[in-house]
Amino acid sequence: MSGILYGIGVGPGDPELITLKALRVIEAAPVIAYPAPDQGDSLARAIAEPHIPAGKTEIAVRTPMVPGNFPAHDVYDHYAEEIGAHLEAGRDVAVLCEGDPFLYGSFMYLFARLAGDFETRVVPGVSSLGACAAAAGVPLVSRNEVLTILPGPLPEDELEARIKASAAVAVMKVGRHLDKVRRVVERLGLSANAHYVEHASMADQRTLPLAELDKAKAPYFSMILIRADAGEAGE
Amino acid sequence: MSGILYGIGVGPGDPELITLKALRVIEAAPVIAYPAPDQGDSLARAIAEPHIPAGKTEIAVRTPMVPGNFPAHDVYDHYAEEIGAHLEAGRDVAVLCEGDPFLYGSFMYLFARLAGDFETRVVPGVSSLGACAAAAGVPLVSRNEVLTILPGPLPEDELEARIKASAAVAVMKVGRHLDKVRRVVERLGLSANAHYVEHASMADQRTLPLAELDKAKAPYFSMILIRADAGEAGE
Repeated sequence: MSGILYGIGVGPGDPELITLKALRVIEAAPVIAYPAPDQGDSLARAIAEPHIPAGKTEIAVRTPMVPGNFPAHDVYDHYAEEIGAHLEAGRDVAVLCEGDPFLYGSFMYLFARLAGDFETRVVPGVSSLGACAAAAGVPLVSRNEVLTILPGPLPEDELEARIKASAAVAVMKVGRHLDKVRRVVERLGLSANAHYVEHASMADQRTLPLAELDKAKAPYFSMILIRADAGEAGE
Repeated sequence: MSGILYGIGVGPGDPELITLKALRVIEAAPVIAYPAPDQGDSLARAIAEPHIPAGKTEIAVRTPMVPGNFPAHDVYDHYAEEIGAHLEAGRDVAVLCEGDPFLYGSFMYLFARLAGDFETRVVPGVSSLGACAAAAGVPLVSRNEVLTILPGPLPEDELEARIKASAAVAVMKVGRHLDKVRRVVERLGLSANAHYVEHASMADQRTLPLAELDKAKAPYFSMILIRADAGEAGE
């Protein structure tokens, strides 16, 4: 019997925002894997840290995190092989994922390589989207409103067209694209309706109106929430 | 000291997909409120049921759930008053919300009425979006792809234009709009890339390719996930 591959959403950062199901699978799986930067600690592992029992086999899936530089395929080939060997030997592997595994998560690179050969189960997690809205106190969408999720690296004209066309927008992965997003928001006259959130639900969470943000670069884990009409949702 | 108003995401249906934070707040709050249909049981309460200790004061926020008929404002005025009285008396109130409170949740109607007067905290939850993607085994978005969330009641031409313009789409609240969404998907040649999910993460979860679905009406808690390119994410 082969092991089962689990993609586990561990939530947006606060270790208390992990689900009971994630906890159960993490406790039971003999092998834990998690994305990690080239050097240094894994955020996904840090989130789950209070819940990881001693004695697990651990695999840090280390990929270069150069902005704009997508993970090299051969890196995932390598880790898929390592994880696949555990699965073949009958050991379940729980891959920890920040937020939700299928929303901009790197788990999908392993999923694409392994799900055809091994039983795979995904445990959804609290996404940064909900965490950012909660942090900012901004109800995102209600009724029949359209919500668009935009990666910050998109070209400026595309961001503008898409923000203009949606009742609510979440711009993810803001990072060095902060000035570009701010320009677009100002041009559309939406500055009063735009909220900036960084490190949502983490100890160093920070949220303020975008217009009050006094820096040029945001961390990778930051988001800008924009509503076409500041007063519409929830009224 | 007034009580604190909590909006608690209890997740998409599986009681195991509740977070530790939600559990802690539910256990501590003397008053629990939850949306409920005009008659019958509350889904949000059913999800949290295994975790609700005896002896709570409970408020069922009953609103007519007629499709296309948005909740009457005076209903929420009434419940905001009832909840506000508990808060004024110093009692915390935990409002249970299916999925995430700020993503199409009715909590925002209470939030809009009470957050100005009382300390309010939102505990994000696992949304049906992540749960549906997990159920269908469909990685939703990766890298710099755009994700659009569309309510099923939108007009057919708007659905078509927005589905065409996005790498990935989640159509929520499908219900009686199933045939309309299916027509659009077929017209755009995306039938092979569209997955249908109902009651994600619940005991009666059902998922299959949209093209294989043999009925004309879906339940309210159903979703259609569409990718512009079936093979793109995760490759």
